[in-house]
Amino acid sequence: MTGRLTVVGLGPGDRAYCSPEATAALARATDLVGYGPYLAMVDDVDPPPARHEFDNREEAQRARFALDLASEGRDVVVVSSGDPGVFAMATAVVEAVGTGDDRYRAVELQIVPGITAATAAAARAGAPLGHDFCVLSLSDVLKPWPVVEQRLSAAVAADFVVALYNPASRHRPWQFGRAVELVREHRKPGTPIVVARDVGRPGEHITVTTLDALDDVSVDMRTIVIVGSSTTRAFHDGNGRDWVYTPRTYG
Amino acid sequence: MTGRLTVVGLGPGDRAYCSPEATAALARATDLVGYGPYLAMVDDVDPPPARHEFDNREEAQRARFALDLASEGRDVVVVSSGDPGVFAMATAVVEAVGTGDDRYRAVELQIVPGITAATAAAARAGAPLGHDFCVLSLSDVLKPWPVVEQRLSAAVAADFVVALYNPASRHRPWQFGRAVELVREHRKPGTPIVVARDVGRPGEHITVTTLDALDDVSVDMRTIVIVGSSTTRAFHDGNGRDWVYTPRTYG
Repeated sequence: MTGRLTVVGLGPGDRAYCSPEATAALARATDLVGYGPYLAMVDDVDPPPARHEFDNREEAQRARFALDLASEGRDVVVVSSGDPGVFAMATAVVEAVGTGDDRYRAVELQIVPGITAATAAAARAGAPLGHDFCVLSLSDVLKPWPVVEQRLSAAVAADFVVALYNPASRHRPWQFGRAVELVREHRKPGTPIVVARDVGRPGEHITVTTLDALDDVSVDMRTIVIVGSSTTRAFHDGNGRDWVYTPRTYG
Repeated sequence: MTGRLTVVGLGPGDRAYCSPEATAALARATDLVGYGPYLAMVDDVDPPPARHEFDNREEAQRARFALDLASEGRDVVVVSSGDPGVFAMATAVVEAVGTGDDRYRAVELQIVPGITAATAAAARAGAPLGHDFCVLSLSDVLKPWPVVEQRLSAAVAADFVVALYNPASRHRPWQFGRAVELVREHRKPGTPIVVARDVGRPGEHITVTTLDALDDVSVDMRTIVIVGSSTTRAFHDGNGRDWVYTPRTYG
């Protein structure tokens, strides 16, 4: 008997962003598979399904494990933060179905979308993604660094707003600084920048700054950085908050 | 007394995608402001708030109307489909606060993110947005067409996956065909393409096709088109479904 595999996006941290469809998939699951901190975000599922915890880097192995379970007739949910299709588990699972064991193609597969970190971070600061934008990971673990540089330069040269995922990690300390250098070749010093850490989670911190002040800002894997285009604007409201928006009208 | 203005993203059509935070904002609203079809998506709010319906094109006017109401002490919710920060109402509202009447800056403003059409469409087809991608509107109503061409060419030349919003309308019949020509300068004929119409709504229709077969596909304002990169792959599963994914590993 073949079972079901659902890849669920919880949205950013807080369950206030988790869609009813994702909640329904969790409620019917026999097994949850995921990175430990994501499983911890759904520790209130009742009745409690079996939990299978993996390290964050073991994506292909995690996908095959989940598909093996589903092939045996279980109702498996793979848990992702944000949207599972944006630098997350949906790709690993679909790739495993397409290239792996024949049994995997018989599994009933569903991807449940979630609110991705870029649009959640944008919402906290206003509407910096209100016009054309690019989503780019600065990690060179899975792609060569020259590709990152080429894409970032192309995006800023074409005046896209750019949302940077994975801007830095302990093992990648210099890439963000180099990315800022590249952006400065095309954008003015006063370009608005949104730095969002732990969006929707305890300790959430949103900084609105400018391109020339970006050297003093620290970033890590839990940070999203949104780089404005030439038309992006920032202002303070009467309640002491900073807002950023990119008008829909251009030129 | 100054009130509150919340710009809410309902996610794609179906309420199964509406976040608990969005639902809570709707439940406490005294007034809903929005385009008619979006207001119709929330006709079950109880107790029923006042409803203020606008034409889809009157964005700036709608934003000022909502801010005027909030300035008078009302608890106003501006309703958007998808994510309100992606080609939608959040930008118009934040711009109106930044550039409009001084009273607007005292309003308690909040943007509630939603699942945007691109990631919802991607989920239906697998994980085509699993690697770096761009989000680009093909509408030249608010920006010059040469800007659209330049951005699209830059994005495909840098091998981004590209999600196209507003690919065509009654008044813009030729732009999509021209965009396909530009994509063909950089991508192979077999490049996977996802055409998603009315995602999450009655009549939802997902087509997985290829770049060389795109001339026969009709698109409109309710369609999202996802153009694969050089690494995007497609396959059929054992249940007769097509799947598309872009691996996280590149090169």
